[in-house]
Amino acid sequence: MNLPPVISVVGKSGVGKTVFLEKLIAELKGRGINVATVKHDIHGFDIDRPGKDSWRHAQAGSDTVVISSPHKLAVIKRLDEEMTLDHIVESYLQDVDLVVTEGYKSGAKLKIEVSRSERSREMISSPRELIAVVSDQRFEISVPQFELDNAAAVADLIEERFLRASRRSNS
Amino acid sequence: MNLPPVISVVGKSGVGKTVFLEKLIAELKGRGINVATVKHDIHGFDIDRPGKDSWRHAQAGSDTVVISSPHKLAVIKRLDEEMTLDHIVESYLQDVDLVVTEGYKSGAKLKIEVSRSERSREMISSPRELIAVVSDQRFEISVPQFELDNAAAVADLIEERFLRASRRSNS
Repeated sequence: MNLPPVISVVGKSGVGKTVFLEKLIAELKGRGINVATVKHDIHGFDIDRPGKDSWRHAQAGSDTVVISSPHKLAVIKRLDEEMTLDHIVESYLQDVDLVVTEGYKSGAKLKIEVSRSERSREMISSPRELIAVVSDQRFEISVPQFELDNAAAVADLIEERFLRASRRSNS
Repeated sequence: MNLPPVISVVGKSGVGKTVFLEKLIAELKGRGINVATVKHDIHGFDIDRPGKDSWRHAQAGSDTVVISSPHKLAVIKRLDEEMTLDHIVESYLQDVDLVVTEGYKSGAKLKIEVSRSERSREMISSPRELIAVVSDQRFEISVPQFELDNAAAVADLIEERFLRASRRSNS
């Protein structure tokens, strides 16, 4: 099984993880890389809209609800227990070049930590699990560090370390 | 590959397909059958909410967006062309006992037609593709016909014809 590399973007709440991730996704897509994102939502979520047919199917007890349209497919699965990130990647994400997660800070994947001095002077990750830090402050660790808006440099690093071997570079 | 049986609930718009399907799903679930539903939405849909992190990932260009929580998983996939029903079942629905679709009236699966005299006196399916008709009127065809609210009888028929062989009945 040839699974895509998985990188977790982590950081304290409010440091701008989603803003950074938006820039990184756009940068990677611009290079022709197929990207999947996984958002870890420990509080649960309501993605379907009350009253829609698919919502009514789920309410009636359907274990998995699929909505299929010409340009988009949605699969909503009821679970007895949370699926592991590895299981999600194996089951649903084998067709992309790269998986980037938002969250999963206690997971075992390599990480990019987003940090902002205004929010905290400390990191939440251990240096050995980091491939990069994205921040407006410098930390005394031997891990590549980039400015908060420098998604291009992080994309370079990801391409170099994780994607060169498995796909032909566009550059 | 041991794929679950697939049955399509079809009928003209406004005959009550979703209402019937809700009753049928609840009936099947009550018998311990794991059911998936597939809704065919030719017009496309917006399932994710503007402003949510996962929506922002998709807007930034993510090809597949996953939201994972302890009791629910959602996978939203951008497509270049519509996925066939067979491909959907193979990719995402191997773990259920039965797949019921709403729509796919021109597909090659066995069908249950929902019909109401107030809406139309004619059927949209050919008798040879039907396993049952659910209606307030009778048609001169040799296909089992049931009242609109008789989901229990339709569930009996489905269990008998499609599920007895593959799983141990609860009755």
